[in-house]
Order: sequence, then C-alpha cells, then structure tokens
Amino acid sequence: MHQTTRLADLVHERLTDTIAAHRLSLQDLGDDCTPLLDEALGFLQGGKRLRAQFLVLGYRCVAPLDVTDTPPRSEASIVLDAACALELFHAAALIHDDIIDNSDTRRARPSAHRYFAALHHAHGLRGSAERFGLAGAILLGDLLQSWADELMQRALDLIPDRAAAHRARTHFNQMRSEVAMGQYLDVLEEQRAEFTADQLERSTRVLIYKSAKYSVQAPLLIGAALAGASAGQEQSLADFGLPVGVAFQLRDDQLGVFGDESLTGKPTGGDLREGKRTVLVTLAREQLPAGPKRVFDDLHGTADLDREQIAMLQRTIRETGAPERVERMIASNIGKARETIREASVHEDAALELIALAEYAARRDA
Amino acid sequence: MHQTTRLADLVHERLTDTIAAHRLSLQDLGDDCTPLLDEALGFLQGGKRLRAQFLVLGYRCVAPLDVTDTPPRSEASIVLDAACALELFHAAALIHDDIIDNSDTRRARPSAHRYFAALHHAHGLRGSAERFGLAGAILLGDLLQSWADELMQRALDLIPDRAAAHRARTHFNQMRSEVAMGQYLDVLEEQRAEFTADQLERSTRVLIYKSAKYSVQAPLLIGAALAGASAGQEQSLADFGLPVGVAFQLRDDQLGVFGDESLTGKPTGGDLREGKRTVLVTLAREQLPAGPKRVFDDLHGTADLDREQIAMLQRTIRETGAPERVERMIASNIGKARETIREASVHEDAALELIALAEYAARRDA
Repeated sequence: MHQTTRLADLVHERLTDTIAAHRLSLQDLGDDCTPLLDEALGFLQGGKRLRAQFLVLGYRCVAPLDVTDTPPRSEASIVLDAACALELFHAAALIHDDIIDNSDTRRARPSAHRYFAALHHAHGLRGSAERFGLAGAILLGDLLQSWADELMQRALDLIPDRAAAHRARTHFNQMRSEVAMGQYLDVLEEQRAEFTADQLERSTRVLIYKSAKYSVQAPLLIGAALAGASAGQEQSLADFGLPVGVAFQLRDDQLGVFGDESLTGKPTGGDLREGKRTVLVTLAREQLPAGPKRVFDDLHGTADLDREQIAMLQRTIRETGAPERVERMIASNIGKARETIREASVHEDAALELIALAEYAARRDA
Repeated sequence: MHQTTRLADLVHERLTDTIAAHRLSLQDLGDDCTPLLDEALGFLQGGKRLRAQFLVLGYRCVAPLDVTDTPPRSEASIVLDAACALELFHAAALIHDDIIDNSDTRRARPSAHRYFAALHHAHGLRGSAERFGLAGAILLGDLLQSWADELMQRALDLIPDRAAAHRARTHFNQMRSEVAMGQYLDVLEEQRAEFTADQLERSTRVLIYKSAKYSVQAPLLIGAALAGASAGQEQSLADFGLPVGVAFQLRDDQLGVFGDESLTGKPTGGDLREGKRTVLVTLAREQLPAGPKRVFDDLHGTADLDREQIAMLQRTIRETGAPERVERMIASNIGKARETIREASVHEDAALELIALAEYAARRDA
C-alpha cells in the first residue's frame, strides 16, 4: 500500500496548505480568530483519510492517475482537491456530531467543543465555558463545511468534461443531504423510549445513510464521476461501495462496543454510553430473555456507565453470539463486493487496491 | 416598492419549491425525516428577504432584469436562484446563531432548537429534550447550508460568462468565511470579563464582519458579479454597501435594546440579556460615571433580567445620549452611501431602488 501512504501524506500537505491559505485571506479579522484556524488545523492532523482514498480509487477505476504528480491545475491536483474537500466535510460533520453525542474525545484529542471550552477557562472569560465550547464548535463546523464546498467547487471548475463535473456535484450534494438526514435518524432512534419491532430495519437504515453511503459509496462515485465514468461503471462502483460501506460500519459497531481506546482514540464502550441502536446491539438484544433484556435496556444509554457496567454489557452482548453474527455479515458483504468488482469494467490495478482498502475498512481496529 | 413586494413573493415561492424538491429526492429515507423538512419550510416562511433584494438590485445596477419573467434557465431564474441561496444560507446561520445565543424565538416562532425540543416531548422520547433540540437544530442548519451552496452553484453553472460566475463564487466564499469568523468574535466579546479600552474598535469589527459585509455588501457584490460588473462597478457597490450595512446593523443594535417584540418577533431587550457588546451599548457605557457603570456591568448579560431591570437599562442607555449618537451615525452612513451611488456608473432606476431599500434597512422597526 505504498501509494496509499503516499496519498495520505499528500492529502495531509494539501489540507495544511488549505488552512494556511484561509488564514492568510482572513488575516484582516485579527488574532482573535486564531483559535478557529488552529483547531481546524489540529483536527485535520488525524483521521484515516478513508474517504479521500475511496475517491481517488474511484477515479483510478475509470482513468489512470499518478497522484504524486500534481502540478497546479493538473488532473491529479484536481482529484486531490476533491479528495481533500471530502476530508474537510468529514471534519465538519465529526465536529458537529461530537457536540450532538456530547463526546469528549476524537482522534485521541479533546473534541472541538472541549477545545473551545478549555479556551474559555484559559482566556478567563465570564459566563459558561460549556456554552462557549458549543459556540466555537458549531462555528468551526460551519466554516469547515464552507471550505469543503469551496475546495470541491475549485476542483469541479477545472474539470474540462462539464457533464462529468455536474455528475460529481450531484453525488456530492446527495451525500451531504443524506448524511445529515441519517444523523438525525440516528439521534431519533437513540432516544426512542423502546426498541421497536422493526428495530433491525430501522438500525440498518441509519447504518446505510449515516455511514455506508457516506463513507464509501459516495466518495467512490464522486471520484468515478470526475474521471468521466460511464453509467455502467458508476453502477458497478455503487454496487461495490454499498456492501463495503455496510461492512465498514458494522466494524465500527464492533469497535464502538469492544474497541481499544488506545487504538480508536475514543473511549471504550462509547456506543453503550450513548445508547446507539446499532445493528450489533439490536441483534444482541433480540436474543436476550426478558430479565436480562430489562437489565440491558436499563443500562444501555446511561451516560455515566462505569468500567464494570461496560464490561458486563460487553459480556452480555458477546454471550448472545451477535458479534460473530456481525463478523459473518462483514465477511459476506466484503465477499459480495469482491464479486461485483471482479465483473466490473474498471481498471484492474485500481480494483485490486480497492479490494485491499475495502478489507482494511472492514477489518481495522481503529 | 411594487417590484420589491413581487420579488419577495417570487423568493418565497422558489424557496417553497426548493424544499419540496428536496423532500422528493429524500423520500427513500422515510417519514421520520419529515420534521427536518417541515421546519426548514416553516423557518423559511418568514424574514425580510433583504439579502435576496440586495442581490437582485446589485445585478440590476449592472444589467437590466425583469425578475417577474422567469422561464427555466433564463437570466431572471438564475438570479432568483442565487438570491434564494442567500436566504437559505441566512436561515442556516440564524438557526445556529439561535443555538449559540440560546434564543427561544425567531421570526415570531419558536427557534429551531425549541421546535425539536418540543418534538421530543410530543414523540415521548427518552433522554434530554434540550439535547434533542440541539441535535435537530445543528443538523437542520447543516442541511440548509448545503442546500444554499447547491442552489448557488446551480445558478453559477448556468451563467455563460465564466469569469463572472467565478467572481460571484469568490464573493460568496469570502462572505461565508467572514460571517462565521464574525460570529465567533461576537461571542468572544460578549464573554470577555471586562469591556476593553479599545472596545469600540472591537465592537465595530464585529459589526462589520458579522453584519455589514454579510447582510448588504456581499449580496450586492454577488449580484453585481453575476451580471458581469466591471471592477469599477464592484468597487462602487462595495463602497455603497459597507456604510449601508453599518447603518443596517446600527439599527439592529437599537432594535436589540429598544425594539418592540410584536414587530421584531424577538423579545425586547434581547441584546441586554445576551450581554452583546454592540456599538450602541459600548457608546452608552463609555459615558457612564463609575457607580452606574458598575450597576450596568452587573446587569448587562444576565440571562434572566426582568421587565423592570430591562426598563432600567434602557433608561440608563437613553440618558447617555448614545441612541441619538447612533441615529446620527446611521444618517451619516446613509448619506455617505447616497453620495457614492450617485457618482457610480450604474443603472439609475436600480440605484434609486437601492437607495430606497438602504433607507428601509436603516429605518425599519422590525
């Protein structure tokens, strides 16, 4: 995966340059704005750059590209801008998501709202540090969302094939709407008084819109569209991307319950504290007899679960066999994706890298 | 102002159509998402459509346009899309701003976060209604920001003069960054432990970035750019727009302290409760002797000020003569703007309407 590591470096450099350019163009506003720019930069240091990678591979499935050769206005430079735009958008979404979930950490750093709350103390401001943290994080997310769109459009404006640019924009637009809706459904599920009879269907819908389409399918389609993909190629990548995205999120479900904090950068059992009705949790709960189910429902979604309670819930979930079932679902989705891409009319070298990336997304421990 | 009323109607219709189109394209997500779409629509019912009007007049200063003649892909239809994009962006900004300011009402309706909090009760959800309200409003703001960008780009893609489209996009990008930064500075000023020696300078900076450029100058420049304005025309409209924007916000400062709730749709004395360090408040406070200044500082920014305390603060501010001083500043800014536009190479009929709109913005009571 040498290309992949190199791509992550290039994305990193370009994101750093993007923030530096914004810093310059906003310098008339004075030094008081520095924390917004610093936290933008700090937040963008981390992350797996999965969306950037899927976008570039989507492109390379359709047309050859050397991402290390990026003079200004070159094809590679345009694709890199689009990839970075997805990373900026993702940062914005995570910053707002952390407010919504009241998460303290992200990418092994304090979440953005905690960063601004700490600044409130450091500056000796009056009023509520929590509210200042909220304000800073909302506005930083808004800024990054604007900058994502700005960078995406800079890329699209330079694509000579206007129909291709238009299709890429359509995928980008649809992605943004669907992920916000998916997040809303996620919060709604989490706060329902009861698991519903059709909970698995509901949880699967959240998984698809909040994650599978957003994290894998849409980046692939944007990349492919940029390269001028045919309708058939787009369909193949959509059919590949969806199961990979499902596998990606099912892995996330596992990590949300069993993940190692030192690897994920998020507290162990976070999904249990937040009461997320993931597919994993829903499958586990279905298997529980009435008594343990009541205990489970009592604890699930309690913000201040202690270590022992989390261990107990993990044990309960494990004993239902749901984690193995989820592992089988992950394997089957990846299998389905492999078959799809094998039959697709796409560049073989890119397809092979795509399978490797899909497997990483489905098997990662962070 | 018949054109103006007609324009407001057209903007209203098109915003309604835009939300309906999104509702259709997102129907696969199911009925649970309906509240986001309903509240988007509800929120967009109100508002003065000032930004839309400034955009259209910016265009008409440079090129003639009949906004009532809008077949698909016509010039007027493109300009109307751009105008509606500003209204969508503004709705997003207000929804997030209301979270930040913890405002209960907006446009004489509950603010978006209150709407979603009420929904939490109505749906019998568990957990915190306030947190659900926060989540819904953050996500609705994000959605509307995306939709603003989508609509703006739809307009820009149809402009045959690519250089003009590019300049309009640059103004739009700069506007979005500056307003988020300006809002951050506003929150920062509000939470400083003390008024600083350079408070007037600081408060003026907030006024310029959070409001004057955003509400008047940027919409004018986007409109003018769309029409293919010359550098000289853009400069004239920038020189006109800034003092009009300053006057607009100084009026807002007056309404934030003395405004009539039944007209503004926001509680009387809201700026006093929020402890906003507006130019008005800063000018008033500078005139106070040490004793009353301490009393003033104690009360200013207290969230639960009662009616009498607000009346007392209003009286204190009035007695310093600051409101008259602000009125003189408003008149002088409008005077400056009149002179600028008189000397500008722009269409005279549009310039006359622009002056009328500027005066409305500066003298309005809501």
